[in-house]
Amino acid sequence: MEKQKIKVAITQGDINGVGFELIIKTLSDNFILDNCIPIIYGSTKAAAFHKKTLDIQSFNVNVISNVSECRPKRVNIINCGNDEIKVELGQATKTSGEAAFMSIEAAVKDLKDGAVDVLLTAPINPAVIDREQFNFPGHTEYLEQVFGTKGDAITLLVNDVFKVAVLTGRAPLSEVSSLITEELIVSKITALNQLLIEDFAIRKPRIAVLGVNPLAGSDGVLGQEEIEIIKPALKTLGEKGIVCVGPLAADEYFGSEDITRYDAVVAMYYEQGTIPFKAIAKNRGVDFTAGLPIVRTAAIAGVDYQVAGQNVVSEESFRQALYLACDVFRSRSNYHEISSDPLKKQEHKKQRPYSRA
Amino acid sequence: MEKQKIKVAITQGDINGVGFELIIKTLSDNFILDNCIPIIYGSTKAAAFHKKTLDIQSFNVNVISNVSECRPKRVNIINCGNDEIKVELGQATKTSGEAAFMSIEAAVKDLKDGAVDVLLTAPINPAVIDREQFNFPGHTEYLEQVFGTKGDAITLLVNDVFKVAVLTGRAPLSEVSSLITEELIVSKITALNQLLIEDFAIRKPRIAVLGVNPLAGSDGVLGQEEIEIIKPALKTLGEKGIVCVGPLAADEYFGSEDITRYDAVVAMYYEQGTIPFKAIAKNRGVDFTAGLPIVRTAAIAGVDYQVAGQNVVSEESFRQALYLACDVFRSRSNYHEISSDPLKKQEHKKQRPYSRA
Repeated sequence: MEKQKIKVAITQGDINGVGFELIIKTLSDNFILDNCIPIIYGSTKAAAFHKKTLDIQSFNVNVISNVSECRPKRVNIINCGNDEIKVELGQATKTSGEAAFMSIEAAVKDLKDGAVDVLLTAPINPAVIDREQFNFPGHTEYLEQVFGTKGDAITLLVNDVFKVAVLTGRAPLSEVSSLITEELIVSKITALNQLLIEDFAIRKPRIAVLGVNPLAGSDGVLGQEEIEIIKPALKTLGEKGIVCVGPLAADEYFGSEDITRYDAVVAMYYEQGTIPFKAIAKNRGVDFTAGLPIVRTAAIAGVDYQVAGQNVVSEESFRQALYLACDVFRSRSNYHEISSDPLKKQEHKKQRPYSRA
Repeated sequence: MEKQKIKVAITQGDINGVGFELIIKTLSDNFILDNCIPIIYGSTKAAAFHKKTLDIQSFNVNVISNVSECRPKRVNIINCGNDEIKVELGQATKTSGEAAFMSIEAAVKDLKDGAVDVLLTAPINPAVIDREQFNFPGHTEYLEQVFGTKGDAITLLVNDVFKVAVLTGRAPLSEVSSLITEELIVSKITALNQLLIEDFAIRKPRIAVLGVNPLAGSDGVLGQEEIEIIKPALKTLGEKGIVCVGPLAADEYFGSEDITRYDAVVAMYYEQGTIPFKAIAKNRGVDFTAGLPIVRTAAIAGVDYQVAGQNVVSEESFRQALYLACDVFRSRSNYHEISSDPLKKQEHKKQRPYSRA
């Protein structure tokens, strides 16, 4: 029996940025269509504009009005928004903000209704979206609100060889220390441990946990959070049977071979995770919003207005994000199937990330 | 006329750690002796112990009682400390702390007197050194005190392709924001600009400056330091004719090709610089204490008690540190010679780091 193809909702992102370049280049590879059904939520006019600008002939779409009409061997697009929409490459405009939001809203509605399986988002510029509609730093917080799971999301940066979970979101550096609590560490790492099992089919995850201060506080000389907050949290987690090691000095960790020895590493604040991830993964790797009832992935990329329409951006990260979304969806479905039928357990195999199988 | 050989004072570091492994492996390469005169300040007994443990026959020393006796084609060692000293591999002991300090003190005294030219330090564990003698987080602060230049030192992490300057030292993360002032940025980057000219023979340095918050504060949404402190400081620096660009988002910077486009990048806090440096440079690269009247370098390495005596540590970084110290010393001497005699300017050539010439 043929495996059910996964329906991937793809948002158009900011139409004046590099979003459509990522989408068009990724979906021009027909191999994609063997594995999933892509459904773009966006402007057909903007898509046509970018196709022409990039001069990519092999990209063709099947315009539909709702998901039920989608065709499995085609790139489907559900037209969102105004037909008179104007693309202004490299400009941050109200129009591009509106278009970005309409795309997200339509895709997330279908995701919530179960009409599509996973969400892949192109980069947006939250600053140009109407605050009344979207008053969030990014997709993650919007999704938390829509699904009523505030605080549950875990940003997981994933590449071929390592995964970085970020404990606290995009907060000013001066607020980081006050955001780190024992409860937060225990709840996030408990959730991380479970999602590594469910979403990545890792039977017994091994998790590295970084300190917040230089040299992980150097026994209290360079800060107290490690002694007062992180160590007690790790003790509690250990008592729950979760394998986590730390607090480790972040710079030493990322300079060592340990990055390949653990199933994930927990960074205490945003740039402690994103700096080494980008330094090592460069333009590869995926931003996975884990911990929510639905699967959302994105490329490690911004709207990149300055190079929009120039056909210079690599789609590698976006392509990986598409595959990872499908892999995680399958792994999660598989896990729940197995959990409800213990006899099936022997069929459960570890998957490699981005596998095309 | 033969070029004057540079006298390199080398401290033994913590005798129970990997310091002697770095020293012995580096100085076993006789090519080193063509370029400089190494003078180890340390215990001959500890050196012999490590030589035997590591089983490196090609390492032989010339024991001297003061620098004036040093021989140019030999590895010289000035015996410091107790002849009954006991090496306890992997142990943090009072004895190893005492020995580390005696070595530093003797080397720095000769450096101050001009008897040696540059300082190369093996890793220490400040926690085991008597607080009465050495109440500092590391070598840098000790040197600032000895040379009466408190606050002048700039930690510069140097590898083949990029240099990272760290604006603030090893401070708890929660204190970082309060340490960053407009005055500090202006004075440190002014000094950095000058030292890039003097120590690295870069005629017109181009300096990248990072923000302190995620996305460099995202126009004030994620923090105010960029708007209130960093931008005004960069404006002042620009008016002084210093070429500096920023504030840039740190994760994007280290994920991009920009790291090779600037002569140096300024990180606002310790791990913002050390994490990407170690993630990219791995066990290569040098820790250069710039901005002081003397030149001090060190390997990117800790005492590494857990692998002491096992002959598993790479000496690459220590070897680079030795060459960089010599290169900087030559460049600085050259600059001052030229400054005092403008007719010589045409001979001034840009040097490559770690050049053996």
